[in-house]
Amino acid sequence: MLELGGEALVLTHDAMLAGTHFLPDQDPADIAWKLLATNLSDLASKGAEPLGVLLSYQLGPDDARFAAGLGAALAHYGVPLLGGDTVAGTGPQALGLTALGRATCRPVPGRSGARVGDALWLTGALGGAMLGLEALHGGPGDPRPYTRPVALLAEGRALAPRVSAMMDVSDGLLLDATRMAQASAVTLAIDSTLPPLACAEARRAEALRWGEDYQLLFTLPAGLVPPVPATRIGQALPPGAAPLLVDGTPPASAAPLGWEHG
Amino acid sequence: MLELGGEALVLTHDAMLAGTHFLPDQDPADIAWKLLATNLSDLASKGAEPLGVLLSYQLGPDDARFAAGLGAALAHYGVPLLGGDTVAGTGPQALGLTALGRATCRPVPGRSGARVGDALWLTGALGGAMLGLEALHGGPGDPRPYTRPVALLAEGRALAPRVSAMMDVSDGLLLDATRMAQASAVTLAIDSTLPPLACAEARRAEALRWGEDYQLLFTLPAGLVPPVPATRIGQALPPGAAPLLVDGTPPASAAPLGWEHG
Repeated sequence: MLELGGEALVLTHDAMLAGTHFLPDQDPADIAWKLLATNLSDLASKGAEPLGVLLSYQLGPDDARFAAGLGAALAHYGVPLLGGDTVAGTGPQALGLTALGRATCRPVPGRSGARVGDALWLTGALGGAMLGLEALHGGPGDPRPYTRPVALLAEGRALAPRVSAMMDVSDGLLLDATRMAQASAVTLAIDSTLPPLACAEARRAEALRWGEDYQLLFTLPAGLVPPVPATRIGQALPPGAAPLLVDGTPPASAAPLGWEHG
Repeated sequence: MLELGGEALVLTHDAMLAGTHFLPDQDPADIAWKLLATNLSDLASKGAEPLGVLLSYQLGPDDARFAAGLGAALAHYGVPLLGGDTVAGTGPQALGLTALGRATCRPVPGRSGARVGDALWLTGALGGAMLGLEALHGGPGDPRPYTRPVALLAEGRALAPRVSAMMDVSDGLLLDATRMAQASAVTLAIDSTLPPLACAEARRAEALRWGEDYQLLFTLPAGLVPPVPATRIGQALPPGAAPLLVDGTPPASAAPLGWEHG
């Protein structure tokens, strides 16, 4: 964040590598979409209004298709491309995007503001991106929750003046909730039965650890009702031995909480 | 460029790939320095005051050394690291940096403002980075002009209110001057004997095509004297058949004008 001329500028940069963050044979138009949407989702979690983006682009298998996809995504979100850089290389395609936004309220929400007694809320459902990636690999279902995630900009703006803490769920609910708990110095207690699912109930445990659904996770003082559709999934407790409790106990350390990508 | 709260925000992003923009075995501290300096040089050419940077970092051979070098460079220039992203990958290390600056004068100078009759000026000397790269490869001399380029921020700020056009010479004087001429719809005529050299006179032709010296190239209305040390190297003529004349003739197309990197 940066103060400039009485405005608070919110800045985000996400990098993506072929083979790590996207499949090398994925549609470049989808990759462009996702690169933009994930950055805008970060702005959404701050309640920020996008002002523009800069693209860091390594030439790839179909640059025209990437450009067309990016153009469509920029038009969809009404965001201008302000600049960037293009490079040629021989390794896995490396992409990056910097997004700039204007804060619409103060203080700008972050992950550190949850207070003991707050309720923990989640917009939307989990598991759609998981099914989407499986669809890309030939599974049944709709790939779009994975290939074309939606940045919840309007929801973020509506929530920002009310929440005590907010972030987007990019790496998995349990991992991201742990981060919020640690940043806020509270314990977050989640009832695992409460998050709505976009997948079968049998896959609930996976969905809670799967990222890339880009829902907003936020805390509200007890008794407040969020101004957008959301589900209460837990609450903030005084800091205990573990930052996160799932159904009353720390999640098993054998399973990763989410996507600990580099 | 972005207008925000009455300020003009100047944005720049440079990407660098191991093997393309730096040697894979180069000191990571030098790579960090150069990544910052090249972006700040872009801000310098706009007369902008740096506000902060975002780093896009792919884990590499010595991350601690990179971090130490970046920290030192940020401290040298007094610029805060505002955020960024870190990724792990298997290919050539991909780096990117977004720099944000505040314009210190309006209009913000660009490469398109040169007018017929303007004089063409250059700060400093050319050829130092060329010798610096050779030093890295075991040649005599000082590698630092290549490994630790200097962003001419003070010079850029002093020049910005006076110039009609300005850019930094990153890809070679002849190529960058061609770009300025094309953007300004003039012909730029350069006297090849005038640019000061940091290398031997015998290598003048190479030095005029070698980039990475990060000097400022600018035009001033005839008769104006620049407020910083600089050399008059040519003038802007009405647009002719070629955007660039060197000693009265278009440069031979057999030799590249500069570094046409992807």
